[in-house]
Amino acid sequence: MRRYLLMTITLAAVLALASLAAAEPLPSWNEGQPKRAIVDFVQRVTTAGSADFVPMPERIAVFDNDGTLWAEKPMYVQLAFALDRVKALAPTHPEWKDKQPFKAALEGDLKTVAAGGEHALLELVMATHAGMTTDAFAQVAKDWLATAKHPRFNRPYTELVYQPMLELLTYLRANGFKTYIVSGGGIEFMRPWTERIYGIPPEQVVGSSIKTRFELSEGKPVLVRLPEINFIDDKAGKPVGIHQHIGRRPIAAFGNSDGDLQMLQWTAAGNGLRFALIVHHTDSEREWAYDRQSHVGRLDKAFDEAKANGWTLVDMMKDWKVIYPFQQE
Amino acid sequence: MRRYLLMTITLAAVLALASLAAAEPLPSWNEGQPKRAIVDFVQRVTTAGSADFVPMPERIAVFDNDGTLWAEKPMYVQLAFALDRVKALAPTHPEWKDKQPFKAALEGDLKTVAAGGEHALLELVMATHAGMTTDAFAQVAKDWLATAKHPRFNRPYTELVYQPMLELLTYLRANGFKTYIVSGGGIEFMRPWTERIYGIPPEQVVGSSIKTRFELSEGKPVLVRLPEINFIDDKAGKPVGIHQHIGRRPIAAFGNSDGDLQMLQWTAAGNGLRFALIVHHTDSEREWAYDRQSHVGRLDKAFDEAKANGWTLVDMMKDWKVIYPFQQE
Repeated sequence: MRRYLLMTITLAAVLALASLAAAEPLPSWNEGQPKRAIVDFVQRVTTAGSADFVPMPERIAVFDNDGTLWAEKPMYVQLAFALDRVKALAPTHPEWKDKQPFKAALEGDLKTVAAGGEHALLELVMATHAGMTTDAFAQVAKDWLATAKHPRFNRPYTELVYQPMLELLTYLRANGFKTYIVSGGGIEFMRPWTERIYGIPPEQVVGSSIKTRFELSEGKPVLVRLPEINFIDDKAGKPVGIHQHIGRRPIAAFGNSDGDLQMLQWTAAGNGLRFALIVHHTDSEREWAYDRQSHVGRLDKAFDEAKANGWTLVDMMKDWKVIYPFQQE
Repeated sequence: MRRYLLMTITLAAVLALASLAAAEPLPSWNEGQPKRAIVDFVQRVTTAGSADFVPMPERIAVFDNDGTLWAEKPMYVQLAFALDRVKALAPTHPEWKDKQPFKAALEGDLKTVAAGGEHALLELVMATHAGMTTDAFAQVAKDWLATAKHPRFNRPYTELVYQPMLELLTYLRANGFKTYIVSGGGIEFMRPWTERIYGIPPEQVVGSSIKTRFELSEGKPVLVRLPEINFIDDKAGKPVGIHQHIGRRPIAAFGNSDGDLQMLQWTAAGNGLRFALIVHHTDSEREWAYDRQSHVGRLDKAFDEAKANGWTLVDMMKDWKVIYPFQQE
């Protein structure tokens, strides 16, 4: 008797789990091609015995961050951080008052900063991201994110994440995927908060980095951040970063700009069923609308490739019921 | 009634799991200080409510590979691989017959190779590890390991792994630890087989690397291995590699040589309870005995630090019932 009850209960538990997994996924996604394509892909790679079945350890999904998981307008969040850090550090750098690009940064003159090009940005990043231990930098990044507000929405930047993408991360993980961030942004700028906001632990974050050096400081081991580029995890760097960190090819990749093109190509070209998706920013009211002409998050070549290769294109205005969690009723 | 039965069955399941976890761990370890220290550490960090409790995501354990998880005598396995590759590639490199260190490598003259120092070794590695795609290299490494035999034991190198360390890896994972390799060896030389042999997936392998470049080869995306050092994951490089790949500090570290010293220091200096262990090669009969004077796997400074800091020292002869799995009855 007890044995039958046990079987009944086990069966009930299995059914409960199955129904949980089958519960309507992606509630903030409108019915449409992108949602259907995602669900179809996940069902095919997770159905045992199917020709497209992928064993769990190989279910690797990679996500760009800026413009794919959270907002990148009016400027990259990390640039806002660097500009605020210049202001915070200015009292100990009196020379910055007369020296570009620091002068412009201190005056809030973004045009002049931008006119300095990549070199100016690099100078700002090096001056604000190096010269302290890794522990100290993580704390600075955490403290800033706890207080800084997005200029348009007047909310912490970590609230400017896309609700439909949070649901997608959860849905993939519920189906045995390991979710990674693969971003052009600084790896150590992201790691202090990605676990809390996205459920992605530090070891699953790939990003750009500066070099660090191991030192004994008064007998205590520290890692000191050096003003020297280690790795740029953008464009052709993304497959390289994926290979370095993960060591196997993803089966699904999610991006929004030309910076993600090579990551999408690398993922899509693997053996077996693969999934590539691009978030197209089409919603000027709830978010921003931009693509081929944008300086930040330009979507041009990758747009053409998506169409040519049949990658999934998300139209944010049409496909997403809400953009940010705070816009939910 | 059914409810009580459910509770009973749940309780039974919990007890069964608990007894499974409590089953005599580390059967190939003799009773003694190292085994007691390991079990005590694991119990303290996994006991909820204990002052030393560590949440599961933070239970990171790092293992050196050569000399800690598998044999490194009479030479690093990867050097044996490089020497065999020189022989295999020689027909397409007629110039090697008259050029050092290739000439010596082809003649099996290890003394001359060694006399060339690091530079000669680097030349051999670059000539044999670069110039192909990452996929091609993984296949070459896999094929070699499937056929090459250890000169003393006449068995595949992957059988020269330490049975007590395999048990330790399993024991830690059963207690919620994430186990990583952090090795001076080549990351792409290890990744093709660490999951099968150690249960450690590619994304949990940290090692030395050469640079790679993303290319479209006849429209197909590939990563090409370049003859240029990217990162040396040895000595002061180990904490740097840990930080790059894992992004948080381990709570336990396992090594066997001075190359592991900084990894052990970095781990041991973290907040809360930490565990540092050194495998001391003391068994000239079943394995090899070496420490302060050895060229490969020298244990000198780290030996002194282990004693000064109370790190756990494993005496292989005394503490291990068997060394290799094939030595088990």
